[in-house]
Amino acid sequence: MDKPILRIVPLGGLGEIGKNMMALEYGGDIVVIDAGVQFPEEGMPGIDFIIPDITYLRQNRDRVRAILITHGHEDHIGALPYVLAELDVPVYASRLTNGLISVKLREHSRLKDVQLNVVEPNVRFKIGRLSVEFFRVCHSIPDAMGVAIVTPLGTVVHTGDFKIDHSPVDGKRTDFASLARLAEEGVFLLLSDSTYAEIEGYTLSEQVVGEALDRTIGQAKGRVMVATFASLISRMQQVINAAVKHGRKVTVVGRSMSGNVKMATNMGYLNVPPDTIVSIGQARQLPLNEVLVLATGAQGEPTSALVRIANGEHQDVDVVPGDTVIISASPIPGNETLVAKTIDNLFRQGATVLHSRTALVHVHGHASREELKMMLSIIKPRYFVPVHGEYRHLVAHAALARSTGVGDSNAVVIEDGDVLELSETEATVVDHVPAGHVFIDGHNRYGADSGLLEQRRRLSRDGVAFIAATVGKKTRKPVTAPRLISSGFLEDVDSKEILQIASQEAFTTLERHSSSGLEWDDVSAKVAQSVSRVLYKETGMRPTVFVQIEEV
Amino acid sequence: MDKPILRIVPLGGLGEIGKNMMALEYGGDIVVIDAGVQFPEEGMPGIDFIIPDITYLRQNRDRVRAILITHGHEDHIGALPYVLAELDVPVYASRLTNGLISVKLREHSRLKDVQLNVVEPNVRFKIGRLSVEFFRVCHSIPDAMGVAIVTPLGTVVHTGDFKIDHSPVDGKRTDFASLARLAEEGVFLLLSDSTYAEIEGYTLSEQVVGEALDRTIGQAKGRVMVATFASLISRMQQVINAAVKHGRKVTVVGRSMSGNVKMATNMGYLNVPPDTIVSIGQARQLPLNEVLVLATGAQGEPTSALVRIANGEHQDVDVVPGDTVIISASPIPGNETLVAKTIDNLFRQGATVLHSRTALVHVHGHASREELKMMLSIIKPRYFVPVHGEYRHLVAHAALARSTGVGDSNAVVIEDGDVLELSETEATVVDHVPAGHVFIDGHNRYGADSGLLEQRRRLSRDGVAFIAATVGKKTRKPVTAPRLISSGFLEDVDSKEILQIASQEAFTTLERHSSSGLEWDDVSAKVAQSVSRVLYKETGMRPTVFVQIEEV
Repeated sequence: MDKPILRIVPLGGLGEIGKNMMALEYGGDIVVIDAGVQFPEEGMPGIDFIIPDITYLRQNRDRVRAILITHGHEDHIGALPYVLAELDVPVYASRLTNGLISVKLREHSRLKDVQLNVVEPNVRFKIGRLSVEFFRVCHSIPDAMGVAIVTPLGTVVHTGDFKIDHSPVDGKRTDFASLARLAEEGVFLLLSDSTYAEIEGYTLSEQVVGEALDRTIGQAKGRVMVATFASLISRMQQVINAAVKHGRKVTVVGRSMSGNVKMATNMGYLNVPPDTIVSIGQARQLPLNEVLVLATGAQGEPTSALVRIANGEHQDVDVVPGDTVIISASPIPGNETLVAKTIDNLFRQGATVLHSRTALVHVHGHASREELKMMLSIIKPRYFVPVHGEYRHLVAHAALARSTGVGDSNAVVIEDGDVLELSETEATVVDHVPAGHVFIDGHNRYGADSGLLEQRRRLSRDGVAFIAATVGKKTRKPVTAPRLISSGFLEDVDSKEILQIASQEAFTTLERHSSSGLEWDDVSAKVAQSVSRVLYKETGMRPTVFVQIEEV
Repeated sequence: MDKPILRIVPLGGLGEIGKNMMALEYGGDIVVIDAGVQFPEEGMPGIDFIIPDITYLRQNRDRVRAILITHGHEDHIGALPYVLAELDVPVYASRLTNGLISVKLREHSRLKDVQLNVVEPNVRFKIGRLSVEFFRVCHSIPDAMGVAIVTPLGTVVHTGDFKIDHSPVDGKRTDFASLARLAEEGVFLLLSDSTYAEIEGYTLSEQVVGEALDRTIGQAKGRVMVATFASLISRMQQVINAAVKHGRKVTVVGRSMSGNVKMATNMGYLNVPPDTIVSIGQARQLPLNEVLVLATGAQGEPTSALVRIANGEHQDVDVVPGDTVIISASPIPGNETLVAKTIDNLFRQGATVLHSRTALVHVHGHASREELKMMLSIIKPRYFVPVHGEYRHLVAHAALARSTGVGDSNAVVIEDGDVLELSETEATVVDHVPAGHVFIDGHNRYGADSGLLEQRRRLSRDGVAFIAATVGKKTRKPVTAPRLISSGFLEDVDSKEILQIASQEAFTTLERHSSSGLEWDDVSAKVAQSVSRVLYKETGMRPTVFVQIEEV
C-alpha cells in the first residue's frame, strides 16, 4: 500500500471557503463536516438560497460514512434536507443542534428515514476506521462544538465556528482541557475559523453585553424592546435576566423568536422564572416601565416584527415616545442599509435606539487574532489549513499560524473544490473537483453557470419589450402593424409614441425580409435587432426584445 | 410687514437629509446650497443616478437668486446640468470646485449659457438683499468651503461637509478665525454636517495616512500600487511625496485618475516634481522596486483599473508576487462586497494587500463627535439644524448641540421637504413641499412613485413569460396552440415540457371564453391569470405573464 494520505476538500461557502461543507477522507472513509446554506447576495435576484454542489460526494457515495455537524446555525445545517435526499448517511450533532435539525427535517417531511445521532462532547466513537470526538467551543449559539478526527496519520482538529469566552452565559467554556489533551497526542492538522483573522485583539465576552443590557434596561423609564437573532439563546437569557431583575415582564413577538424561546426553555437551554413571559395582550395591561418586548428583526428583515413596529405596521405593538429600543446584533454584510432604515424609523416614531455602533449591546461569535493565536499555540499542529473566511482572511490566518511556529509550507491556503493531500512529508493540492453553488429558486435548481441570472439582471436593468407579428402564409408579409408591449421599460405616459415608432420599425423590417427566403427564426432575430436599435436611439435604454412571428 | 422670517428647505438626499441640495429663503430671496446627485441603492435596478426633485424651486423660480456650491464632490455638483437647464441663475464656487463644474457642464454642452463665478474665501458679496461669505473647511477634496449668509435676522452658517484637520496636506485648515469672527457677530442658525455624529472622538488627520503610506512605500521590496478616490487630491499628493522620497516613478492608470492628476497639477493643487510621472510603457522598463502605480478602483468598481488588475484583465498591468497593494479608501456603504472581492483577488494573484480594516491607510473627510462639539462651541448658534446625515445621525447631532448649550427646542431635526420657519422667537415646520427623488435612466426620468422599478424588481425575481395567441375573427377560437416564450424564468433544458403545459392551459382558457362575449383585453387577463396559476403550481415561481391576442 502507498504511504498514508489524508484528503481535505472544502466544498461550499459563498465567498467563505469551506464554510458550509467540508469533506475529509482517509483510506476508504469520507466524513463530511457541516451541510449549510447561504443566502443570496446582490446580483442573485429571485434566488431563495444556495446549497453546496455535492457532485464530489455523489461520485464517492460508497465511501461517505457520516455528516458531523458543528452547530445549529443555518449556514451549517440548512442544506441537510437536500444532502440527505441524496446521501443516506448518519448525522452526528449535539443535543440542541440535533433539535434544530429535527425541526428542519420535519418541515421537509424527511425525518423518519434519517439516522440522527446526539453526541456528547469528549466521547470518542468510531466512524469506519476513524475515531471521532466532539469538544465544546463558545459561539453565538449554545451547544456549539469543534470536532477531532483521529486518523493513523494523527489527529485532525476542526474548530468549527468559535470564540474564546471565559465567562459565557451558559458557563460552558471553549474546552481548553480537551484541546490540550488532543494536542498532547499530537495534532497532524488544524482547521480553524478565520472569520475574524483580520481583527486585532480579543473578542469581548458575552458578559460585557449582559452588563450593558442590565444597565440600559435598569435605567429605562418607559418600555424596552430588544431585537436580536432568534438563535442567540444566551443573549435572550441575558435580556430575560435583566428584565426579571428590574421588574419587567417579557413578551415575545416574531414567529421564530417565540418558537425558539419555547424550544430552548423546554430543552433546558433557557432559564425563565415562572410568570416572566406574558402574552402581548397581558403586556398591554401593564405600565410601560414593566414591559420588555423581545423581538425578531435585528437584521432589518422587511417582514420581521421590529421592522413592522418601526414602520407603524405591527398589529400589536406601536412605538411611543419614551420607548427604548436595543438592537442587540450587528448587521450581517449586505444588511447595513436595511438595519439603518429600521433605526431611522424607530427614531422617527420617538424611540431612543441603542445599536452596535453606539453602545456595547452586541459582541461577535468569532475569535479575533489573539484568540486564534491561542488556539494555534495550544494545538501546535503540524499542518494548518485556515477555513471559514474569505480569501484574505485565510491569508491573514495562515500568516498568524506561521508566526506561532507552523512551518512556512505547512500553513496552506486552499479554496473550495481544491483536493489537498497531506502526508507525513508534504501537503499538496492534487486535484480540483466541482464545488460551485446550487441556487434554489422555488422548486427549481440552477448551477452557478446558468444563464438565468444574467437574463434577470438584464431584465431588471432595462425591462423587456415583446412584439407579436402576424404574417401571411403566402405573401410572407405582415398582415397588421405588429403590436409591442413592455414591462419595466417605459412609463405608460411616455411610451405610446415610442411603441408606435418601434412597431413601425418592426413592420418595415418584416416587409424588407418578406422575400429574403430567411427562416422565420432568423427574421425574428432581425426584427429584434432593428427594434432594439430604434429603442436605444429613442430612449437610451436596451430592453430585452422578443419577437414572435405567427403565420396565418 | 410681518416679523422677519427665515425659511430653510432641505431638498435632496437619498436617506441623508439636505445632503444634495438645500434652499434658504429670506424675504423675497432664495439661495440654493449645492446641487448634487446620488447613486442608486440596491432595489433600484437600471437607474443611472438620482437628482433632487426641484418642484419647489421651479414654483418659486422668480425668487431663486443663486446656487452656492460648497465643494466639488458629485453629491454636491452632479445635478447642476439638470438644475441649470431649468433655473437660469448664477453659480458660486471655489476655484477647484469651479473647475470641476466646468468639466461637468462641458460634458453636457451647457457651459456657455451659465454664469459661473469663482469665489475666494472671506470675501463678502451681495445676492439680492443677502450677504454671502464663504470660509475654508477641510474635507476629502481641496478647496472645500462652508458658507455664511447674513440676513437681517442674523447670520446663517452652513458648514458643508467638513472635518477639523490641524495638519492638512495642503496646509489649508478649517478656518477657525473666520468662524470665531462670524460667531462674534452672532450666529442665528448653524447647519452642520452630521455624517459622523455617532462616531466618538476626533477624526484622524490626513498626516497619519501620510506616515503610513511613507512607511509602507519605503519598506516595500517590489512594486507598489495605490488605489484611492480620484478626487482625493491630498492623498495623491502624499503618495507622490512618498514615491519621490523612496526613489519610485509614478504611473497613473484609470481615466478619471489620469485626468484629475493633470487638472490638479495644472491648477496648482498637486505638486509633482519633474520626471516623476511616467507612462506605463516607461514604468515597465524600470525595476519593480522603482515603480508606483496610482490607480482608480478603491471602491471595487467593476470596470476600474484596480479591479481589472485584480482579475488579471488589465491590458498593461499584471500583479506579480511581491507586489504591495494599498487600498487607500474605505468602502462606501453598499460597496463592501465589491471591495472585499477585489482584495481577495489581489491576494490570489500573490500581492500583499493593505486596506482600511488592517492598516491606517485611510481617514475620513467628516467631523466626529468632538469636532462637531467644537464647531458648536465656537459658533454658539441660537438655532441649530443638523444636515448631511441619515435621521439617526441628525438625532444624535441635535442631542450634541443641546449638550453644548443650544436650547432644547432650538435644535430642530427636519426632513427633506420640510419648510422650517425661524423667527426671533421660534422655529416651526410650517409646510411640506415635494422633495422626492428623480431617477435618471438613459434619456428618461421617473419620479420615485413610478411603477417601473417595481416592475423591474418583479421581472428580476421570477422572469417573464409571453404568450402570443391568434384567434379567428368569427369563431373567436384559437387557430393554433398559443406559443409561449420566456426570459429569466426557466432554464432551457427544463422548460419545454412546462411551456407546453402553459400553452395548453392558454388554449383551453381561450376556448372557454370564445363565446363569453368578453372584450379581448379581458380575455387576455383571464389567460394570463390561468397560465400564472399553472406556472406557479409547476415551478413555484411567479413570472410576469403577458398575453397578446391577435384576431385573424
